[in-house]
Amino acid sequence: MSDYQSIAARKQQHLDSLIPPEWRLDASQIPAGMLSRADSITQTSSYESINVTAIPRTCGLLTPPELHITEDYNIRALLAEIHSQRLTAEEVTRAFCKRAAIAHQLTRCLTEPLFTQALDRARTLDTHLQSTSRPIGPLHGLPISIKDTFHITNVDATNGLTALAFHPATRDAALVTLLQSLGAIIITKTNVPQTVGTLDTCNHLVGRTLNPLNRRLTVGGSTGGEAALLALCGSMIGFGTDIGGSVRIPPMCTGLYGFKPSQGRLPYGGQQDAGHIPAKGRIGLQPVAGPLARSVEDIGFVMGEIVPRAELFGEDCIPGTWGPTSPLSNPSKPKLRVGVLRSDGIVEPLPPIAKVLDEVARILRRTPGVEVVEVPVPPALSKCQGLANKLMGIDGGGLMMDLLEKTGEPLTPWLKGRIGRRKEITVSELGQLQMQRAQLERAMMRMWTLNAADETRRIDAIIHPVAPHPVPEMDRYNAIGYTSSWVLLDYPAGVVPVRTFREDDLELGREMTIPVGGRWDEANRKLWTETTVDRRVYLDSPLSVQVITPKQHDYDLYRAMQIIDQAIRSESTKGTETAKL
Amino acid sequence: MSDYQSIAARKQQHLDSLIPPEWRLDASQIPAGMLSRADSITQTSSYESINVTAIPRTCGLLTPPELHITEDYNIRALLAEIHSQRLTAEEVTRAFCKRAAIAHQLTRCLTEPLFTQALDRARTLDTHLQSTSRPIGPLHGLPISIKDTFHITNVDATNGLTALAFHPATRDAALVTLLQSLGAIIITKTNVPQTVGTLDTCNHLVGRTLNPLNRRLTVGGSTGGEAALLALCGSMIGFGTDIGGSVRIPPMCTGLYGFKPSQGRLPYGGQQDAGHIPAKGRIGLQPVAGPLARSVEDIGFVMGEIVPRAELFGEDCIPGTWGPTSPLSNPSKPKLRVGVLRSDGIVEPLPPIAKVLDEVARILRRTPGVEVVEVPVPPALSKCQGLANKLMGIDGGGLMMDLLEKTGEPLTPWLKGRIGRRKEITVSELGQLQMQRAQLERAMMRMWTLNAADETRRIDAIIHPVAPHPVPEMDRYNAIGYTSSWVLLDYPAGVVPVRTFREDDLELGREMTIPVGGRWDEANRKLWTETTVDRRVYLDSPLSVQVITPKQHDYDLYRAMQIIDQAIRSESTKGTETAKL
Repeated sequence: MSDYQSIAARKQQHLDSLIPPEWRLDASQIPAGMLSRADSITQTSSYESINVTAIPRTCGLLTPPELHITEDYNIRALLAEIHSQRLTAEEVTRAFCKRAAIAHQLTRCLTEPLFTQALDRARTLDTHLQSTSRPIGPLHGLPISIKDTFHITNVDATNGLTALAFHPATRDAALVTLLQSLGAIIITKTNVPQTVGTLDTCNHLVGRTLNPLNRRLTVGGSTGGEAALLALCGSMIGFGTDIGGSVRIPPMCTGLYGFKPSQGRLPYGGQQDAGHIPAKGRIGLQPVAGPLARSVEDIGFVMGEIVPRAELFGEDCIPGTWGPTSPLSNPSKPKLRVGVLRSDGIVEPLPPIAKVLDEVARILRRTPGVEVVEVPVPPALSKCQGLANKLMGIDGGGLMMDLLEKTGEPLTPWLKGRIGRRKEITVSELGQLQMQRAQLERAMMRMWTLNAADETRRIDAIIHPVAPHPVPEMDRYNAIGYTSSWVLLDYPAGVVPVRTFREDDLELGREMTIPVGGRWDEANRKLWTETTVDRRVYLDSPLSVQVITPKQHDYDLYRAMQIIDQAIRSESTKGTETAKL
Repeated sequence: MSDYQSIAARKQQHLDSLIPPEWRLDASQIPAGMLSRADSITQTSSYESINVTAIPRTCGLLTPPELHITEDYNIRALLAEIHSQRLTAEEVTRAFCKRAAIAHQLTRCLTEPLFTQALDRARTLDTHLQSTSRPIGPLHGLPISIKDTFHITNVDATNGLTALAFHPATRDAALVTLLQSLGAIIITKTNVPQTVGTLDTCNHLVGRTLNPLNRRLTVGGSTGGEAALLALCGSMIGFGTDIGGSVRIPPMCTGLYGFKPSQGRLPYGGQQDAGHIPAKGRIGLQPVAGPLARSVEDIGFVMGEIVPRAELFGEDCIPGTWGPTSPLSNPSKPKLRVGVLRSDGIVEPLPPIAKVLDEVARILRRTPGVEVVEVPVPPALSKCQGLANKLMGIDGGGLMMDLLEKTGEPLTPWLKGRIGRRKEITVSELGQLQMQRAQLERAMMRMWTLNAADETRRIDAIIHPVAPHPVPEMDRYNAIGYTSSWVLLDYPAGVVPVRTFREDDLELGREMTIPVGGRWDEANRKLWTETTVDRRVYLDSPLSVQVITPKQHDYDLYRAMQIIDQAIRSESTKGTETAKL
């Protein structure tokens, strides 16, 4: 057995050992079974379109109170139960740990279950609350999960690489410290792709994380483990990182909410950064940490506790308040003005994506207090993705290749032919790239003024696709310009689910007539053209919308997401636009 | 005549042509004369300790109303006169242009007088106000000045290099656009050192800018032209840039106030950046723009108008309010807690500097609402200056040397032996430096908690020397760690003048007994040891204090400076600590 295989086997064993026998599903309870770890990576065509989200409810492992705890609360309500001592942190934590264990058996979403530590911590919190009558912090007892890349002392952070397994961290990431100081309980770390640089969550250590809504579709990446876990209600909120879309794409794939903040809102420091030159984000493109959750309100509640404290924990954070950012950007104006940005200028959205964006625009036009305007696609936007890619690759990838070669692990399917060794660029070339970035940033400012001659902002938020295609089959996710551009520009951007894909969205027998626009556009068409895809695979998958605000207007993004979400939900109740949501 | 000399002669001619004959001083009105442009650069020992600040008042060129306009108002009061039409923008602008012309004849502080354009603009504003009864913006009619490095369309920005003369800009810097949109009138651009990389404002195009308080002392740099102009009341407020101390050192040298904001508060973009690789600040050390003024209130007034709008004008800016930054950093706590940070850990402050810091600490201890604590020098602080220097030099200086060699201009005295061509560093090395920076940032966070185990901030602001020495003679300014470290850390930092240097500060016959600490410390001692300096040269020069707050707490810095300034002024009135101010 080669080096990587033995490490992977040991890791699998370690992972298995952390799931108590009494929390195990019977093989018969897993529909169509699970492929082996290795097969899950390559034998993707063996998976069937199965939705496993009901299994935690039906499998019998969770008691009725545990089902109630894990399904029926938002964060505010659950914390109220714990802080008033109607629920103990221990019973809440046990319910979520158990459910996370079940989620893992259905989707391979965990890397490092921390159930024992979490239950210990919960008991400590309970004792504290019982003896002092005061929670240790505003998130006292909240079960949360975190992407594998964040360091937790004594726990691995592998970046999906066998070479980094069994090298436990010696310190906590600042976000971990901050969350724990607020009283949150980290119940597990969650799976990421090999190198963390792909959009399918798949590696040799854990295998492939499956999409609980549909096993043939990708769960997205790189924060895919979080998405699978949250979609199965195995955690109240999760934290990921985003440089190309990694806290937005997995929620899009699983019908959740994702929030990519601006730089400096959440501590990012303390990540596993092996495989890259040091401080690569500072000089190239800076990833940010952000939450994924089951509701906008859960995101807002937790951000409201983190943002004002972030500067005290992360050297990479700035002071923040969770309230209107700037009086000038919202001069007590009665309406939220939402712009509709239909394309990134490179890849034409496929028909169901264009349709859903249009539906949301129509809903918003009918929403009191909201005004909708069309936003012409800024020419600068079409240059953002290319520049973002260059800034992600400034070190030439040699360190990552070294790590891959160290244990001889093969590339996962999506990475094949997509990575290799290139020359590190020079400092002058890096400066050129950053100068181009400043020029794009300047040009993009005019988007918010609708190209008017003055500097007055004419729109508060933009709605835009998350991707130009529906949730694709595994290893078929393609362009990331719809998400990476907003990292390049440091605009906060979030994802709101709209509805599921319906029979009439298939447009069977109809093809797109607009001419193909280029290489990226051509690749995107393959996810729609009937000769290259069976469109029926998209049935019942979630369709989402992305919401974007100007740089550092994170609270404004939250408010816009909340208003848009409420408008969508209320239409859905009325059964007009989103009838089958 | 060589290339550089002919360019310099043409520039001098151009500059002379922009000063109307009726605004010229008679040679007899300039005490001890002025050296020629070329001699001013090298013949520094010929200058006498002369204070020229009274000459604008005595020379007879300014009418009594013009003296009143230029001397007796703060910004708020002057604008009130203009906006209520008790003064016209034209008469105010003419008074300041005239005074700026006089200042230039006494100190060589201007590079590009814009008197004609300013008076035209003033008349346009007057017409607008007369016809609409409304000012065009909150700074309508305010005469301001700006460092030569900011681009103004059709005007040179030379970085003090003959190679860049007569290449007028084709666009306005974002700060220029912003200030003009508020109604401010730019009356002139002001002088900078050759390369903008030294702390004496001296170049071949304009010559050396003199310190109006004492011609033997340096005026500081690189925003030295602004300081000379403002000290002679030739402008209401000026804007400079700071990477090593350039908006703080000139105010220290001239008894003014300077304010280096955090990144993103004022637009920096649109600088003359020839001589550096593109976007050098983004990947290395980011300079910031900041104001210099004659009072804290003037700084606060103008920042209050700029900061909330900056994000609309500069792609490098973030949303800002001019009010308390974070509720957590000031949880309605009754006291301002000021820390006393006595050294940078490398260079021991000379006796008068230590003494003045101590005086300010004593004054603050007696000030109601202020609490004073000692701050141990963080070991990390001593590493900041060295890292800042490395980050300033990432491109090896080749482009700057090319520009210098292009016209064959000689190096000004301070630069001799201090610049040359080195190799550009690699991207990996750059990443290493930025990683070290993140480590120092993290370590320095503990300064604010006074090394307590938790993350609670225990001090709001720090007082610290601006430099470890008094205002030195020309070309003797040395270590910049006391100022550059705060750019590395992105802490906002400002300068408040305390009092003038007195006879008893000389400590004649007494030498420092503490052992010399290293190369920088040794160089600093030469500014005090009686065999290497005549201490009497410092008599009557200003002594200042630096105030520093955590990253992005710019309004908190302003408030702290205001409280400290008021405490100092009120003591000065009482005549205790600062008797002879």
